[in-house]
This record gives sequence, C-alpha cells and structure tokens, in this order.
Amino acid sequence: MVTTAGPRRPSTLAPVTGAVESRQERKRRTRQSLLDAALRLLADSSLAGLSLREVTREAGIVPTAFYRHFASMDELGVALAEESMRTLRTMLRDARQKPADDAIKGSVATLVAQVRKHEPHFRFLVRERYGGAAEVRRAIAAELRLLGSELATDLGRFPGMATWSSDDLRMAADLMVGAMLSIVMALLDVGDHPDDLAQVIGVAERQLRMIALGMAHWHPR
Amino acid sequence: MVTTAGPRRPSTLAPVTGAVESRQERKRRTRQSLLDAALRLLADSSLAGLSLREVTREAGIVPTAFYRHFASMDELGVALAEESMRTLRTMLRDARQKPADDAIKGSVATLVAQVRKHEPHFRFLVRERYGGAAEVRRAIAAELRLLGSELATDLGRFPGMATWSSDDLRMAADLMVGAMLSIVMALLDVGDHPDDLAQVIGVAERQLRMIALGMAHWHPR
Repeated sequence: MVTTAGPRRPSTLAPVTGAVESRQERKRRTRQSLLDAALRLLADSSLAGLSLREVTREAGIVPTAFYRHFASMDELGVALAEESMRTLRTMLRDARQKPADDAIKGSVATLVAQVRKHEPHFRFLVRERYGGAAEVRRAIAAELRLLGSELATDLGRFPGMATWSSDDLRMAADLMVGAMLSIVMALLDVGDHPDDLAQVIGVAERQLRMIALGMAHWHPR
Repeated sequence: MVTTAGPRRPSTLAPVTGAVESRQERKRRTRQSLLDAALRLLADSSLAGLSLREVTREAGIVPTAFYRHFASMDELGVALAEESMRTLRTMLRDARQKPADDAIKGSVATLVAQVRKHEPHFRFLVRERYGGAAEVRRAIAAELRLLGSELATDLGRFPGMATWSSDDLRMAADLMVGAMLSIVMALLDVGDHPDDLAQVIGVAERQLRMIALGMAHWHPR
C-alpha cells in the first residue's frame, strides 16, 4: 500500500483532498443537523426528557452515529448552550457598537427581534439555566459571566464611568444582563396580541432607563 | 351494624367527633407529607422526571392513595408552587413592614436567611418557572404577578412616590422583584465558602441600591 501511494499520489491528490474536505463538511453538517433536530424537539420537552433515539430519528441518522459527534446528550446540551449564547453575545455586542440616538430603545428592539428570530434557542437557555443537567447549567452560567464581563468592559469606556472600579462596572453590567434576561423571559411569555408585546416593550425600556438613571447618579467606590 | 350504632351513639359521640377531626387532620398531614416527599425528591430531579410511585413511596403511602389528595402530579406541582411563593411573599411583606435603618441591607439579609431555610422551595420555583409543566409555570407566574402588585402598592405609600402612576409603580416593583429573583438564583448557585457568599451579598446590595437610586431620580409620567 505504501509503495502504490507513491506513483499514484500526483493524479489522485486533488480528488482525495476534495473527498477529505467534503467528509469534514458532511460531518459538520450532520453535527449541526443533530443540534437543529434537538432544538426542534426541545420546543415540547426539556433536555432531560429527550432521548438520543428521538434526536437521531428527527435528524434522519442512525442512533449509533450520534457518538461520532457527541459523547452524550449532555454534551449535545452544552454545544446547544454555547450556540445559543453565541447568538445572544454577538447580537448584544453589535447593538452596543451601533451608534444610536437612543441606546436603550435600540437594545430592546434588538432583543425583541432576536428573541423572535431565535425563539427555540432562547427557550432552551431559559429552561436549562436552572432546570438542566449540571454540565449544561455550568456552560450557560459560564457564558452569562462572559457576557457580563464583555458588557462591563464596554461600560468602562463611557466617559462618565471611567473612574468606576472594575467591581462596580461588573456589578452594573450583571444588573443589566439580569434585567435583559427578565425581558427575554417576558417576551417568551407574551401572547401574540400586539398590545401585549407593546406593553412588554414599554416596561422593558422604562426598566432599563431606571437602571441607567441609577448608574448616572452612582458614586463609585 | 346500623342497628348497633343507635344505642351506642351517645357514649361514643365524643370519640367519634375526635375521630372525624383527626381524620381531617390526618388527611391534611398526609397531603403535606406528599408535598414534603416531592420536595425532597426534587432536589435531584425536575417535576417532569418524578413519578407518582416515587413520591408515594417516599411519603410512605400506597400509590392509589395519591389521588385522594391530588388529581395529578401537575396539581401537586401547582400546590408546591403556591406553598413556595407563599413563603416568599410573607417574608418580603414582613421585611417591608419592619422599620429598618437600611431597608436594602435588611431585605438582602432576609432573602439570604430565607433561601438558606427554604432552599428546596426556592430551587423548585427557579427550576419550574420556565422548565415545568404549563400549569405549574402559570401558577408561579400568577404568584409572581401578585408579588409585584403587592410591592407596587407598598412603594406607592412612600412620600416621594405618591405622584407616580400605577404603571410606573408596577414597572419599578417588577424590576425589584426581577433583581431579587436574580439574587435568589445567585444564592442558590454560590458555593459554601463564606467569601463567595459575602461577594454575592455585596453585589446584591449594590444592585438594589442602584435601582433605588434610579427610582429616586425618576420623573414619573
């Protein structure tokens, strides 16, 4: 085999590379289809209530193939948590970098749009944050800490907050993140009636404004 | 059997009444022991993962006796949600009525003591708020709304907030409730090290102070 490889290499190099790439690409796609299948099924179930067999059936692959992608359902849960939080972090970072007349109105609008667009991800995060397997809970908590620390860094760049201690910046950022999570939960709970949504948005904006007002009058330690 | 009851009734009246009372009392106790058993088992499981058989076994009663107390496990979950929220509401009402040098320090201390004392109840609330059966979720949401409306009423009695609209009072109350729930979650997550607890308490006090500062500078609509 080694001897045949030599002379044949030049002519098969391109196709072999192509095949390797498409196998990796296929593997990535199957992994994603497992994540997507799990997310669809999680609309009606918690991760604990979901079986590997159900997920592979929904994804259209044989059960044993699951282990080529994840060591366990919990590991799939961790991957879903990371995928969901990545969405949230990217979106909030974008919202902060956009210059806006009204940063609070803009952030709430972004939150509403993203919850609509990625509702299954947000439902998963909210449900598994405290109800899930220890591994998944830890993954979500770690991502939320990261979110708080990114927001704290950005807050520290505001002129009025330059003298704040990193502790105070972090405390304020976590308060904001907590309030935003409450808003996400309210958005997930709200019915389809436009008045209900407008009510949730109005309350969310005023709550974030109240926190911002507290920040503006804060005496840093 | 009916004929023997007549002549014996006068002499057995007192004990019979006693027996009726103790039967009601026994029924109440059995119901409570089912709730307590479920709560113990819920330390390691979600309500959805708990079977009727496990709960009755833990309570030391036969499975069929369950239905004398609850129509379903979801109904037991609703009863647990009400019991848990009653604890929280009573405690926060007491904390607000106590005159305190520092209302925020006092509220956080009460929260810490109560989470320690009723940890399984709080774990249940936090986990089932978004992860539970629809019926249980609705029961918790309704109790949280009640909590917000009670706090709004109390806030309206503060001299500085007399001119606030009921909408603004409610919005501020819900922001406070949300922040307190975040604190409960942080307390449930915190390890046993005293430094970690002190850190959570310090952040909680400063976050509530920041909201209070925002409220103090709020221009009511």
